[in-house]
Amino acid sequence: MNSHLMQHLSWVDYRQRILDDEAIVLLPCGALEQHGPHLPLGTDALLSSAVALDVAREVGGIVAPAFNYGYRSQPKCGGGQHFCGTTSLDGNNLSQMTRDVIREFARHGVRRLALIDGHYENQWFLTEGIELAMRDLSQQGTRTPPLRVVRLEYWDFLTAPTLAKVFPEGFPGFALEHAAVMETSMMLHYHPNLVSIDRIPDDGPADFPAYDTYPTRTGWVPLSGVLSSARGSSAVKGALLAREVAERVAAALRAEFSDLS
Amino acid sequence: MNSHLMQHLSWVDYRQRILDDEAIVLLPCGALEQHGPHLPLGTDALLSSAVALDVAREVGGIVAPAFNYGYRSQPKCGGGQHFCGTTSLDGNNLSQMTRDVIREFARHGVRRLALIDGHYENQWFLTEGIELAMRDLSQQGTRTPPLRVVRLEYWDFLTAPTLAKVFPEGFPGFALEHAAVMETSMMLHYHPNLVSIDRIPDDGPADFPAYDTYPTRTGWVPLSGVLSSARGSSAVKGALLAREVAERVAAALRAEFSDLS
Amino acid sequence: MNSHLMQHLSWVDYRQRILDDEAIVLLPCGALEQHGPHLPLGTDALLSSAVALDVAREVGGIVAPAFNYGYRSQPKCGGGQHFCGTTSLDGNNLSQMTRDVIREFARHGVRRLALIDGHYENQWFLTEGIELAMRDLSQQGTRTPPLRVVRLEYWDFLTAPTLAKVFPEGFPGFALEHAAVMETSMMLHYHPNLVSIDRIPDDGPADFPAYDTYPTRTGWVPLSGVLSSARGSSAVKGALLAREVAERVAAALRAEFSDLS
Amino acid sequence: MNSHLMQHLSWVDYRQRILDDEAIVLLPCGALEQHGPHLPLGTDALLSSAVALDVAREVGGIVAPAFNYGYRSQPKCGGGQHFCGTTSLDGNNLSQMTRDVIREFARHGVRRLALIDGHYENQWFLTEGIELAMRDLSQQGTRTPPLRVVRLEYWDFLTAPTLAKVFPEGFPGFALEHAAVMETSMMLHYHPNLVSIDRIPDDGPADFPAYDTYPTRTGWVPLSGVLSSARGSSAVKGALLAREVAERVAAALRAEFSDLS
Amino acid sequence: MNSHLMQHLSWVDYRQRILDDEAIVLLPCGALEQHGPHLPLGTDALLSSAVALDVAREVGGIVAPAFNYGYRSQPKCGGGQHFCGTTSLDGNNLSQMTRDVIREFARHGVRRLALIDGHYENQWFLTEGIELAMRDLSQQGTRTPPLRVVRLEYWDFLTAPTLAKVFPEGFPGFALEHAAVMETSMMLHYHPNLVSIDRIPDDGPADFPAYDTYPTRTGWVPLSGVLSSARGSSAVKGALLAREVAERVAAALRAEFSDLS
Amino acid sequence: MNSHLMQHLSWVDYRQRILDDEAIVLLPCGALEQHGPHLPLGTDALLSSAVALDVAREVGGIVAPAFNYGYRSQPKCGGGQHFCGTTSLDGNNLSQMTRDVIREFARHGVRRLALIDGHYENQWFLTEGIELAMRDLSQQGTRTPPLRVVRLEYWDFLTAPTLAKVFPEGFPGFALEHAAVMETSMMLHYHPNLVSIDRIPDDGPADFPAYDTYPTRTGWVPLSGVLSSARGSSAVKGALLAREVAERVAAALRAEFSDLS
Repeated sequence: MNSHLMQHLSWVDYRQRILDDEAIVLLPCGALEQHGPHLPLGTDALLSSAVALDVAREVGGIVAPAFNYGYRSQPKCGGGQHFCGTTSLDGNNLSQMTRDVIREFARHGVRRLALIDGHYENQWFLTEGIELAMRDLSQQGTRTPPLRVVRLEYWDFLTAPTLAKVFPEGFPGFALEHAAVMETSMMLHYHPNLVSIDRIPDDGPADFPAYDTYPTRTGWVPLSGVLSSARGSSAVKGALLAREVAERVAAALRAEFSDLS
Repeated sequence: MNSHLMQHLSWVDYRQRILDDEAIVLLPCGALEQHGPHLPLGTDALLSSAVALDVAREVGGIVAPAFNYGYRSQPKCGGGQHFCGTTSLDGNNLSQMTRDVIREFARHGVRRLALIDGHYENQWFLTEGIELAMRDLSQQGTRTPPLRVVRLEYWDFLTAPTLAKVFPEGFPGFALEHAAVMETSMMLHYHPNLVSIDRIPDDGPADFPAYDTYPTRTGWVPLSGVLSSARGSSAVKGALLAREVAERVAAALRAEFSDLS
Repeated sequence: MNSHLMQHLSWVDYRQRILDDEAIVLLPCGALEQHGPHLPLGTDALLSSAVALDVAREVGGIVAPAFNYGYRSQPKCGGGQHFCGTTSLDGNNLSQMTRDVIREFARHGVRRLALIDGHYENQWFLTEGIELAMRDLSQQGTRTPPLRVVRLEYWDFLTAPTLAKVFPEGFPGFALEHAAVMETSMMLHYHPNLVSIDRIPDDGPADFPAYDTYPTRTGWVPLSGVLSSARGSSAVKGALLAREVAERVAAALRAEFSDLS
Repeated sequence: MNSHLMQHLSWVDYRQRILDDEAIVLLPCGALEQHGPHLPLGTDALLSSAVALDVAREVGGIVAPAFNYGYRSQPKCGGGQHFCGTTSLDGNNLSQMTRDVIREFARHGVRRLALIDGHYENQWFLTEGIELAMRDLSQQGTRTPPLRVVRLEYWDFLTAPTLAKVFPEGFPGFALEHAAVMETSMMLHYHPNLVSIDRIPDDGPADFPAYDTYPTRTGWVPLSGVLSSARGSSAVKGALLAREVAERVAAALRAEFSDLS
Repeated sequence: MNSHLMQHLSWVDYRQRILDDEAIVLLPCGALEQHGPHLPLGTDALLSSAVALDVAREVGGIVAPAFNYGYRSQPKCGGGQHFCGTTSLDGNNLSQMTRDVIREFARHGVRRLALIDGHYENQWFLTEGIELAMRDLSQQGTRTPPLRVVRLEYWDFLTAPTLAKVFPEGFPGFALEHAAVMETSMMLHYHPNLVSIDRIPDDGPADFPAYDTYPTRTGWVPLSGVLSSARGSSAVKGALLAREVAERVAAALRAEFSDLS
Repeated sequence: MNSHLMQHLSWVDYRQRILDDEAIVLLPCGALEQHGPHLPLGTDALLSSAVALDVAREVGGIVAPAFNYGYRSQPKCGGGQHFCGTTSLDGNNLSQMTRDVIREFARHGVRRLALIDGHYENQWFLTEGIELAMRDLSQQGTRTPPLRVVRLEYWDFLTAPTLAKVFPEGFPGFALEHAAVMETSMMLHYHPNLVSIDRIPDDGPADFPAYDTYPTRTGWVPLSGVLSSARGSSAVKGALLAREVAERVAAALRAEFSDLS
């Protein structure tokens, strides 16, 4: 039993952790989305769950079960919806699920909640779900919501020095970081047996115009689904990335939630 | 890597399994719900996922990531929504998520899909989600949907002889089988380290009237959340239950889907 | 004028009954669904309305106009959606209508409301509608809802002795009781001119597997739409069933609502 | 048994009427709404059902079960939502129910459908429900919908000569015709035992400004809920009104649907 | 800068106007809809905005940005949805947008809001949006909403003497007043350069039956889209109409809102 | 009359432009949102409309009426929802309005549509609306949608050389570009009379953490609502920015849509 996993706790133990310890609850938000031939479809849920667990260990938190399905994959950040295996939700449905779950945490007495997003496309629909739940809980502005919610994309906690180490030839930015060095390295760190190093494709970085087009122009996206090369990935880099993310997220949550204790 | 878990497969491998092998996809539908002081909150997702994996091994299938959150717990089958830790979705949101995911499987080319439900309260909202997806896919009756969907509650596959062995004093029926002998034994079989045998409560079977009432009369439900006693649970019984469920579900799916191959 | 029918009361009389007498309001929930060649499409609304009226006479209650349309017919309990004449609502729409009506009763000052369901498939969507209304009325847990709601399926109030009399060869259970002896007998009691005794089909009991499949396998369902034989139905049996249901429902409501007076 | 009432027909008989006779289906759309101290809450459903039945007799049609609940009462046409007993649906829920039912009639093979509206406030939400169903059935313009739908408010079929007879002092227009001479006379014709002649209030005609205001200014509406006096109502007038409505609606439907036979 | 246009004000100035002056906010509700060959598609938004601005000048109010898109055009009042250029919203979407915006004005501290509707088809969906917002803001009846909302169709403020001047041969009523003398004259007054006088069609008044039919019978509607002739329109008439509307709306709002100051 | 504005065209002229010229339709998507004390609330709709008109002149396109209300303002990009005057829509409502409008353009025969977004927060809800419309129009993948849609945020078309000229001390990135130099300069170019140069605040750039928090920590946002200084803005810079945006967007649309002609 992992005492940081909500799915593993009895309700009695969970209640104690929430009411007595005011434990931070961490909700990993992933997707089921192609990640090239070398990474598994569950990469975003697996990484956000792994990050959340590392953070939970740092802050004495509890990791809620992941959102295994996320918002539609977009060509520029996840390759797009034309790939077999990518399995996505309509935006409003993701928002409503988020709203439901937050209302429930509030009922439990949770006062500190953090959504750990590992799928870029989720961001705005998670935001909307949180906003809707806050409105429900604040009753049109006359009452303070009983809980504070943080939403973050974990890679935003990486610092320039770390990125410089991981990308010795220069960090190309997060825009094309899909199934590329960051995700592959972190998967090699957390789930090495789920990575097929020998299948990393040679596809160079995708080159997108300044706009989006619908229906998707599939020709913009490499056939492999990888937006920039994962060559140069390693478990050592993954450990470096994972450690920094966990430490910095933990520090941010401690600070953000400090005035609630 | 477990080659039966969709989250562990690359999209390339998944596509091959679907298009070449016409693999059955199995979708476990769970909940996050109190299961007494001796079982974890994730019991329904854990058991439906374990059953789905056993079935997948039998039929060469693929297990999609579980629905970790389910419909509202009801007093008579899950104890009700007043327990801390129970974290539920509105019915329509569960239906819409189901609809989205089925549409996506149809897009992938999946022809055979089975929802393995482990949370009784989910049944009708999963049904509605399937019906809505079938309507979307059949375009108002003018086209045959491209996939066939089975929905089942796994315990319905247990036979009287097996239940007689597991309940030597007589099977009381599934109505109060919440966090009781069946679920506890199966958890002892699949996840023994998540069961606290010494915490099994002494609560006798709950006695409910022939109607439901709202708001919930919490006094109807034992304080522990257990609707009938889990005493007499064992891993041996769990193995017996699990084996029969897996074998009989596998046989049913093979038969049901035989005319599609 | 029937002073128990809300549709027949002026608003002034209704208000008096609600505010002065704290009358119980009974809402019959039916469907428009095939019931074999011998029973009319309106059977579920007609029976739930008749039961509600009998109960109203017992408890001094008021019968609201029936929900004439219900949730989708399912093969195992109502024959399925492939029959001509079956006219169903999407699940969420039934829930939302339920929610609206309950909010209105609360506004009127109704403190005791009972939904008398006569269509098995309605159960969970009525439940969801009630839950949503309760949430609206309780304002996120900070206020007690102003009314208490009971939801019941009327057949659950039949006792074993009565069932033994009605089914001398043994009660086969409610699972296949669609357009069969119970409903036919009760229709012979309440609406004899709407029953075509000579058209009762010879179809033996339907034999369903342990799962559901979509699209419906229509071959599972007898062509007549009857799930088990209605032979042996009689108005005498219907009177016996109707009387027991009315008396026992009335007693239950009196007890359940006693602490509100 | 009334062979014009869908609720009274078996599915076999209904199917024959639809497929062989191409019978027109008539759907009465009512409300549950205060109609002064002298008329019952169900007036709109009762009158639209009675009109529909008269029309059905003329055209060999079938009357579907009424929509018993309608859109929110507005001060200027129904007195408003502040009256006890008025029990209304949100607009979208009424539209969605309409959409569902029309889709079902289309599945049955119905080619001619008429919504007989008896509650002014329903008009636009019925319209929207029809529009949504037409869109579903026409699949974005590429297919002709399988059925034609008429929507009407029955009073629009009254002619000036008839209105001159019923209102010898001059017809004041339909704007304030709520629980007034037209409805009261028609109720005296169809349901005399549901009218309390001696309770007709003396309230003169309501005088509304050219705008609406929210929340409702209840002071605009007479306390009785009657918008103009029902004095002068009679069963004879009711028969005159009812006959003209039935005949002219029947003629209109015959003409409108003639190119479908 | 026009100090009556909310889009032109900085938030600091707007706040001052709302909190210090308790300014009335006016929300023009238009459409994008065919208005014959001689008037532009934006007529309804342009006229309701122009009226709102005139009223704002009278009462010291603020004009919010117009709703540029409205509810579906209906044959009898706007020609119908079969015209190219008509661009409409589903009813519920218009209601929800209205609800959102009203909630926001309430948050700002607005106490007096008037929706100035220039598209007849909008009326009931605006009403529903206002009703929903009022429900949100009143929290199920326990609190008075913080703002009062007026909804009006501007032409209802025209008096018989004025109409007699504008229609010297007799006012035919507003029913067919689409792209006809009233709208054309007001456009000649407010936006003369957007009117093509020489393109006014000769189409006589449309003649509609007492019912509506779906799909639209396009043959009922003149090919030009004009429901009755615009001949006789003039800027002088437009000025007369505009002045009366502005003055009488302003007077009504002053009176209606007087008890809030 | 501006022949590029859809609101100014008659339906006859619009139809000719769409069917004969296959004109590109441009839909400006704005918001009503605080933009500091020196810019008006309507800045996003005004700028996106102005950009769209410039592009329309380049490509012979038509500008549809703007979406005047947008998605909720977020602290990091628009200051947040706590400002008076900011008037926002729920995300799903914005998506549904987008979906409706696109379906209508498709009905008109529009083959080339571009959404010109001027409010960063709109991006994902516009995307979802487009995706939903594409799904409607493609009927589950069996038909090619009849139109191609581009969505763009106009600032993404600015090149590094131009930004270097406008920000001589180095371009700080678009993250804090809210009511700052870019928007202020473009407003000085397009609407100089709506800018209060003397009110540009001295607030330095806002400093946000790597996460978002709900409810908003209003202390993170400068009191003025400006996220970085607008000092250094000028009409000359605005003209430079506007020209580059218009030219480069026009070129992109010509190229993107070239295979449709």
